[in-house]
Amino acid sequence: MKLNEIRKRIDTIDLEVLALVQERMGLAMRSRKFKDGIRDPEREEAVFDRARRLNLNLVEPNFAEGMLRKVIEESRRLQGENRQLVAFQGEHGAYSEVAARRLIPNGAYVPCMEFIDVFKGVEEGYFDLGVVPVENSLEGAVTQVNTLLTNTELTVIGEAKEPVRHCLLATDGKEYREIRVVYSHPQALAQCRDFLSRNSLEPRPFYDTAGAARMLTRERPRASAAIASALSAQLYGLDIIKEGIEDAASNSTRFLVLAKQPSEVTTGDKCSIIFVTAHQSGSLYNVLNLFAEAGLNLTRIASMPLRTDPNNYSFFLDFEGSDRDPTVSTVLEQVHQRTISYRFLGCYPADKQSPTAP
Amino acid sequence: MKLNEIRKRIDTIDLEVLALVQERMGLAMRSRKFKDGIRDPEREEAVFDRARRLNLNLVEPNFAEGMLRKVIEESRRLQGENRQLVAFQGEHGAYSEVAARRLIPNGAYVPCMEFIDVFKGVEEGYFDLGVVPVENSLEGAVTQVNTLLTNTELTVIGEAKEPVRHCLLATDGKEYREIRVVYSHPQALAQCRDFLSRNSLEPRPFYDTAGAARMLTRERPRASAAIASALSAQLYGLDIIKEGIEDAASNSTRFLVLAKQPSEVTTGDKCSIIFVTAHQSGSLYNVLNLFAEAGLNLTRIASMPLRTDPNNYSFFLDFEGSDRDPTVSTVLEQVHQRTISYRFLGCYPADKQSPTAP
Repeated sequence: MKLNEIRKRIDTIDLEVLALVQERMGLAMRSRKFKDGIRDPEREEAVFDRARRLNLNLVEPNFAEGMLRKVIEESRRLQGENRQLVAFQGEHGAYSEVAARRLIPNGAYVPCMEFIDVFKGVEEGYFDLGVVPVENSLEGAVTQVNTLLTNTELTVIGEAKEPVRHCLLATDGKEYREIRVVYSHPQALAQCRDFLSRNSLEPRPFYDTAGAARMLTRERPRASAAIASALSAQLYGLDIIKEGIEDAASNSTRFLVLAKQPSEVTTGDKCSIIFVTAHQSGSLYNVLNLFAEAGLNLTRIASMPLRTDPNNYSFFLDFEGSDRDPTVSTVLEQVHQRTISYRFLGCYPADKQSPTAP
Repeated sequence: MKLNEIRKRIDTIDLEVLALVQERMGLAMRSRKFKDGIRDPEREEAVFDRARRLNLNLVEPNFAEGMLRKVIEESRRLQGENRQLVAFQGEHGAYSEVAARRLIPNGAYVPCMEFIDVFKGVEEGYFDLGVVPVENSLEGAVTQVNTLLTNTELTVIGEAKEPVRHCLLATDGKEYREIRVVYSHPQALAQCRDFLSRNSLEPRPFYDTAGAARMLTRERPRASAAIASALSAQLYGLDIIKEGIEDAASNSTRFLVLAKQPSEVTTGDKCSIIFVTAHQSGSLYNVLNLFAEAGLNLTRIASMPLRTDPNNYSFFLDFEGSDRDPTVSTVLEQVHQRTISYRFLGCYPADKQSPTAP
């Protein structure tokens, strides 16, 4: 191992240690959600005791204990701040986390494996909020999330329209012309196809965009880069070689913020509902007519086949207006009457951020 | 994630963080071996700067920087202690490290991927010492190491006869009767075959004994245990469920300590040599006769086919005596004359520890 290799490995270790400490603090915050998780001196003593008993040769028992004490102190301080636990699907650095950080600036962001984990966690009270992608301007509806929305009791309390700004990331010091291979999620690779072929870069599918960024930091493969968010660059200590490499400028994803209860603070100007009409001609028209006659502007309509009856559909409808407005509530009452299944998902502030802004 | 799962993950994180910090300190000690590696304030500032720029959400930049400062301070303190860098092959917790820790109690033990890395590292001055297994009482000579010994300029300055005490290890709190599967190196599994079959445990080959122990801590597979050293249990925070589970009580490995220069401090009472005789009948006998006539007691003789001429052999000879003894030096001179290739590997204190002692 040469000196520069030693230093590279030290840099990787520093990042990994900090990422683990970050994860530990997130876990400590999550443990607060359990009755027994608040503070348990006996358990803390067991943690220190184990650290002292370890035979790590270069890490003195006292140093190990002292370090853990500092970490626990800091995580207790964080617990005192009472931040909201915001769940998202994917690895740290995912576009969902980018949206979550903008909408809920002072949260603690918790990565989940699957969308269902986000929904269940919020439903069962382990997380305060969930942020999930509902549609993408290029790819259309995110089917899994829309299916889960038809079956959840959760409320939508916010939305975020987030421009998808793909970045080409590499470990620091790597020259652009050294790069031959680019790792990322197949969708991200597809969205940058022109850029990749123009630059003779070979796409390599990876399970996740942020996961590809993390892998770069950890394994430092030769001549390799990743396509992921700018946030991933910050989290994994990577250089942004080029920003905005997506072929279509207007690529954006819309995210919903889910909670157990409607927000008591913010007032909404946009609503989402889901309904199923009787399977007969004109029934959808009759519902849409209600909105047209009341002068309510629809911003999204999407249909999804019902699992129980694939010939019939759930309809997702978003429109401008507040459920506190009597016109809106009258229309919704009538929708309820004219449909065989109806659910009000929530009323929330529309995201005014232009989706194509850099 | 339930509370006990959260806590388990926190425990795993603590162990991983401490293991990474341990590795970092080892790397810092290794960097001292380079002219430019002593202390580089500019580089340290870059490390802190990067930690501050990370956007870890729950880990405040100041906390991250403070933690790294403590780690660097501690590793500087360790550097000041001037411990010897002792290389061994395998993961931390390997039997080679067990031997290294006993023979060189206050070293910094550096894991290497391959035996050749141990040899090269000591030859090039990156490590002070190397500890390698040369023979096992059940398995015989460690071929790779013996081959490397025929080609090295290094000197043997010590030996360790280490009883192989296989332990059954599991993550804490696991009940013996829960265990169904046991991970370890195929050789260790084979050495515990009777024990495993008596207890209806399914052996699962793994690349390394200590590596299997580390995997248990990291991945916590269900109903699983590992066979590894007691040191591995300490390093990875595992419980020793049963010690000494090897079928043959007399299993021990002999290790050699390699250095660039003979020790100036210790005086030896045992020597190792390697030689190649002319390929004609009686030539080995003539050499052995020298030892017999001088009354020098042989403790090991082993032959290895030459790479350049598979019909001819290198002979490894260990015998009791010091090269400062005129009888010994006269015999060695004669050996030199009667062989076509001869190398004195070293004179070192014989390890008097009984190899079967618990």
